[in-house]
Amino acid sequence: MLRAINRLQGARSFTRFNSTAAIPTTQKGVIFYEHNGKLEYKDIPVPTPKPNEILVNVKYSGVCHTDLHAWKGDWPLPVKLPLVGGHEGAGIVVAKGSEVKNFEIGDIAGIKWLNGSCLSCELCEKGFESNCAHADLSGYTHDGSFQQYATADAVQAAKIPKGTDLAEIAPILCAGVTVYKALKTADLKPGQWVAISGAAGGLGSLAVQYAKAMGLRVLGIDGGDDKKALFHKLGGETFIDFRKEKNMVEAIQNATNGGPHGVINVSVAEAAISQSCEYVRPTGTVVLVGLPAGAYCKSEVFSHVVKSIQIKGSYVGNRADTREAIDFFSRGLVKSPIKVVGLSELPEVFELMEQGKILGRYVVDTAN
Amino acid sequence: MLRAINRLQGARSFTRFNSTAAIPTTQKGVIFYEHNGKLEYKDIPVPTPKPNEILVNVKYSGVCHTDLHAWKGDWPLPVKLPLVGGHEGAGIVVAKGSEVKNFEIGDIAGIKWLNGSCLSCELCEKGFESNCAHADLSGYTHDGSFQQYATADAVQAAKIPKGTDLAEIAPILCAGVTVYKALKTADLKPGQWVAISGAAGGLGSLAVQYAKAMGLRVLGIDGGDDKKALFHKLGGETFIDFRKEKNMVEAIQNATNGGPHGVINVSVAEAAISQSCEYVRPTGTVVLVGLPAGAYCKSEVFSHVVKSIQIKGSYVGNRADTREAIDFFSRGLVKSPIKVVGLSELPEVFELMEQGKILGRYVVDTAN
Amino acid sequence: MLRAINRLQGARSFTRFNSTAAIPTTQKGVIFYEHNGKLEYKDIPVPTPKPNEILVNVKYSGVCHTDLHAWKGDWPLPVKLPLVGGHEGAGIVVAKGSEVKNFEIGDIAGIKWLNGSCLSCELCEKGFESNCAHADLSGYTHDGSFQQYATADAVQAAKIPKGTDLAEIAPILCAGVTVYKALKTADLKPGQWVAISGAAGGLGSLAVQYAKAMGLRVLGIDGGDDKKALFHKLGGETFIDFRKEKNMVEAIQNATNGGPHGVINVSVAEAAISQSCEYVRPTGTVVLVGLPAGAYCKSEVFSHVVKSIQIKGSYVGNRADTREAIDFFSRGLVKSPIKVVGLSELPEVFELMEQGKILGRYVVDTAN
Amino acid sequence: MLRAINRLQGARSFTRFNSTAAIPTTQKGVIFYEHNGKLEYKDIPVPTPKPNEILVNVKYSGVCHTDLHAWKGDWPLPVKLPLVGGHEGAGIVVAKGSEVKNFEIGDIAGIKWLNGSCLSCELCEKGFESNCAHADLSGYTHDGSFQQYATADAVQAAKIPKGTDLAEIAPILCAGVTVYKALKTADLKPGQWVAISGAAGGLGSLAVQYAKAMGLRVLGIDGGDDKKALFHKLGGETFIDFRKEKNMVEAIQNATNGGPHGVINVSVAEAAISQSCEYVRPTGTVVLVGLPAGAYCKSEVFSHVVKSIQIKGSYVGNRADTREAIDFFSRGLVKSPIKVVGLSELPEVFELMEQGKILGRYVVDTAN
Repeated sequence: MLRAINRLQGARSFTRFNSTAAIPTTQKGVIFYEHNGKLEYKDIPVPTPKPNEILVNVKYSGVCHTDLHAWKGDWPLPVKLPLVGGHEGAGIVVAKGSEVKNFEIGDIAGIKWLNGSCLSCELCEKGFESNCAHADLSGYTHDGSFQQYATADAVQAAKIPKGTDLAEIAPILCAGVTVYKALKTADLKPGQWVAISGAAGGLGSLAVQYAKAMGLRVLGIDGGDDKKALFHKLGGETFIDFRKEKNMVEAIQNATNGGPHGVINVSVAEAAISQSCEYVRPTGTVVLVGLPAGAYCKSEVFSHVVKSIQIKGSYVGNRADTREAIDFFSRGLVKSPIKVVGLSELPEVFELMEQGKILGRYVVDTAN
Repeated sequence: MLRAINRLQGARSFTRFNSTAAIPTTQKGVIFYEHNGKLEYKDIPVPTPKPNEILVNVKYSGVCHTDLHAWKGDWPLPVKLPLVGGHEGAGIVVAKGSEVKNFEIGDIAGIKWLNGSCLSCELCEKGFESNCAHADLSGYTHDGSFQQYATADAVQAAKIPKGTDLAEIAPILCAGVTVYKALKTADLKPGQWVAISGAAGGLGSLAVQYAKAMGLRVLGIDGGDDKKALFHKLGGETFIDFRKEKNMVEAIQNATNGGPHGVINVSVAEAAISQSCEYVRPTGTVVLVGLPAGAYCKSEVFSHVVKSIQIKGSYVGNRADTREAIDFFSRGLVKSPIKVVGLSELPEVFELMEQGKILGRYVVDTAN
Repeated sequence: MLRAINRLQGARSFTRFNSTAAIPTTQKGVIFYEHNGKLEYKDIPVPTPKPNEILVNVKYSGVCHTDLHAWKGDWPLPVKLPLVGGHEGAGIVVAKGSEVKNFEIGDIAGIKWLNGSCLSCELCEKGFESNCAHADLSGYTHDGSFQQYATADAVQAAKIPKGTDLAEIAPILCAGVTVYKALKTADLKPGQWVAISGAAGGLGSLAVQYAKAMGLRVLGIDGGDDKKALFHKLGGETFIDFRKEKNMVEAIQNATNGGPHGVINVSVAEAAISQSCEYVRPTGTVVLVGLPAGAYCKSEVFSHVVKSIQIKGSYVGNRADTREAIDFFSRGLVKSPIKVVGLSELPEVFELMEQGKILGRYVVDTAN
Repeated sequence: MLRAINRLQGARSFTRFNSTAAIPTTQKGVIFYEHNGKLEYKDIPVPTPKPNEILVNVKYSGVCHTDLHAWKGDWPLPVKLPLVGGHEGAGIVVAKGSEVKNFEIGDIAGIKWLNGSCLSCELCEKGFESNCAHADLSGYTHDGSFQQYATADAVQAAKIPKGTDLAEIAPILCAGVTVYKALKTADLKPGQWVAISGAAGGLGSLAVQYAKAMGLRVLGIDGGDDKKALFHKLGGETFIDFRKEKNMVEAIQNATNGGPHGVINVSVAEAAISQSCEYVRPTGTVVLVGLPAGAYCKSEVFSHVVKSIQIKGSYVGNRADTREAIDFFSRGLVKSPIKVVGLSELPEVFELMEQGKILGRYVVDTAN
């Protein structure tokens, strides 16, 4: 059984470390050698940072559905094997390469999905590093944060303020940045309406908080009274329950005086995604974030044109998005409800995830 | 048989008029009383402008597929009956209402699709007049330009410089503005690639010229060698023939070093529209303009997100777009190849249009 | 002595009216016949709305420094004479012209600085109506809100939700819209720093509230402990007292981790305006709003270029800005502290204003 | 006497090189040991690239006024000493560090003003690398292109297509990128008017060509008939001669139907800069680029606000701007008229520059 510790915001346990401690040559980590192979918690070598890399003593790492997909080999994009997964790691910089100028030993760093990119293609040059054809991905093409010591490209590694709770910030590094980026992609102005489809889930509950902090009016779409209660607790204004409403399009448009100016689709229901093209306000923006396998977004051309709407894909955030998303968290505007377990228990977390039994975000403590 | 006069750019016949001539009480126009009913060329009353309207002595009017749809009652949007169609009219202001300050008698005015809007809803306030829920449409909900004297809301009527060839500018008022708006919607920078799907058709050939004048590199997609020749003559850079290419996505991406930054879908082929979501460059923009009945644009969610593309609908232009589109024409950067026939021959033009036999743009001369 | 009633937000007295009441032919108003001439409170004719106008039964009107300038003839722009001043009026629509479609009798309307514009120049077309060369101005070139019945162009008149406190909303119609527009002009993102120079004055205290509602971090600049207290009460984060700080540039940059991303200059001190170009963050935006007579903004070219900053002028808001500014007020995010006196007491308010003895905003009640 | 060779576009001499040639340990370069000290053309060691650097066999380098300022120590920013100047170098990659992934041996690379930046501050993250507080500058804080072999940060080094004339492209790397960036900063749309103040000078003549390629209408301001002739030859539309016009503001506004939408100040005349704030169109943009020592831009606050104009500083371009500026050159849309002399003659070029006798751009050939 998982000895999960529900971590409440406020009961912060600040990380202590001794920056002069020697770096060991081996460490504990979870590694797998083939897709769906055994997830082995064992001693592995501590990696050596390259000239442009930092070595991070990872304290905590969030666990994301993407980690499960990497292990199972679900996606067309090839995975490094053997692999140490994880891409939501927070820890201490304990060593750095010769060319690293933006981190000092003892700084707090975050390991995130995008570990590195070419920095010199048209996309990188314009801040779309995540879309770079040569993107290097933590816990996918580069060993990630499910180990005590991980390397990270210094340019892409996240800067975390000292004094931050490293367990609570872990999920911000991927989930938080992703929804914040999606909200930026919707390009809304304070005072406008945003609908969050899947508002009470892991991504959705972060999205509601970021949206509110950005001055938006938030309509949440999800199912069930407990979800409704959570939504309002997080600061949401109007909740539409898809289990109760017969005419979703009408209900949403009525509640927002003509439709939300933007929609964030964190839900992975294909029908819900296409429906968002119907209820969005004329000239409004539908943002796609969730990644349902093999799904299509279908939009009726006539109304797409006459309403002049737009459908935008939003992937993960870039360096600026990451800094900003962390800043909202550090200022206390976004809370990250987590459950902490030991790194050794990661296989059990994966099992729960496969069974769809996960509520909220698990974070692994690399110390046990 | 249609006594069409192929009008060549350059052989301009400037319109002369006598601004002191009395306005008659009856005039010639083409009117129908029910959908698919007889298109009657006959004497009808000259309308009286309201306080906010001008009365335009229409000299020439373009004929658009939308006129055919209005006559047939193809669309869900109700049509005024009986109706005088037409929404690409160019003529002389011969009278004006008491509140009109922006036109003088003798000015040249254009009658366009959007005759008026509420000017006070959220959409109108932001320049999206065309998307106003109370839009009034020339030749659809308001008698249009297939008559010698038509009324037009002064705020929305187009201002045309004196000395302009009124026959040639007619199609610019709808077709020209529409493609220009679509190019603006793609939000490209000079030097970037734009693909025009349907590049050699009526809308496409105008789009190619506008794109070039905007500093874009133009890739055209269409079928046939004559189309290719026309495309290059208009200033296009690279032509992809869908009749010859086996792998369109690959061919287009290779020709543009990774895909066009924007795509303008003037073609009404449903498959071509969805395909444009595949070949567009990462972070690029697909613009929907053409209105195939009942069609859907389908985009695969995973690649939409990972490539972070956007699909935008573009309807007709607003007042600013109209002024700008006319300015490109007036500066000689865009040519409008037309065929001129008498207004009395309009029923025959509709017939040809129904049979799909129209090449280029017909313009009717209201004088005969 | 002025029998001012300090109106507290919350103690709302909703306006009642009988929409079927006959419109009188004469009314009370304050009129002057020459600059600096007697401000006469007397019976004047009720105006008749033109086809595009509404007739508003003004209940309350704010008093602005501009009203004083108009009376004194301070500005180069010629004033209509005789003149009924006032451009912050809130009241009930009691009649309307034949072409008015966006107001019904009984609706609540706001009279604002911009009464009308040509709607067809390049500036109007793009939403810069306020910059139109043919702008018609309430209480300046068009009789304004210091009377019981005033006409207003229906397109520009503000829409006010029913149930609104008409006294409290009056100053929002000019002061509120102006600072909200300035904040939009600064083009900041939620989470960024904005400095308000003159944070505790009439405009400044509204600016602080709007900025906070827009998700910005607010640094206020003003002098005195009472101003500091007011600033924090309004939601401001950091206060810099110009009476205490020796090095303003350093103090402001330190407080904002490198300078505010935007600066709103509502202060009319010339030196403070130029100084804002020094402390603004690299790539940041200085907004000019206040109108000190004959003043210049001076920016050192070398640092302007190397820091790549921008200095933007912001005039009054357009129709969209007005609707949005009212919406923030209606949602309770912005409070408007006012003092209410009778319209007959307007001359005394002008006197206090000339003597610089006004704190906060006076609103006149047209009923007495 | 300088044996300058006037290089005409078209008479291209393509560079040949043998990529397998051994890299020598010493080379020819021009170095100085103290400000205003002797400019020594002599044998110096070939530098070794760091892990993130490439080693470029510089073939040609442009000579810029900034090089003169660096030698004289004119600016507050400290200069590396001893120093090899130059920041417009074009050559062949002959070696690279272990972490360089975006260049191969044999590629063509450009050395530009910005050699490197931290890549992780708020400014770098958003593409404002040039404004980074830790910017490393070629020929200023890092040995530059006045030598046969120079190191360059691989991320910032410019990519130049094979087959490019390396002498002609040299000035594009700084002068070209700078004016292109300024035009982008003006944020104009094709068809709008841009004024180039100093249109026939070194920067101005490039600006005119870029502006035209971007679809803008170009008004040039300069003095003299030969300048006028050059301006029109480069594609400019309207020329205003400051030696002949008595009322510049009126002349410019008349020629552009109300003022140019944007102004690019490459001229370093302080009065001309402030004047541009007067003639710019309402809501238009004044861009500051030239760097007159100790100069101020003065703008009258009242008209700045009422016209709602903006004054933006534009420094050098970033990676994306560089790639785009090179692309316009490579497509033949921008010509770069140069005079080629030997590197050994650099001291004489500096002397001419100090005497203000330079017309056009000198480029040094490192081979002699």
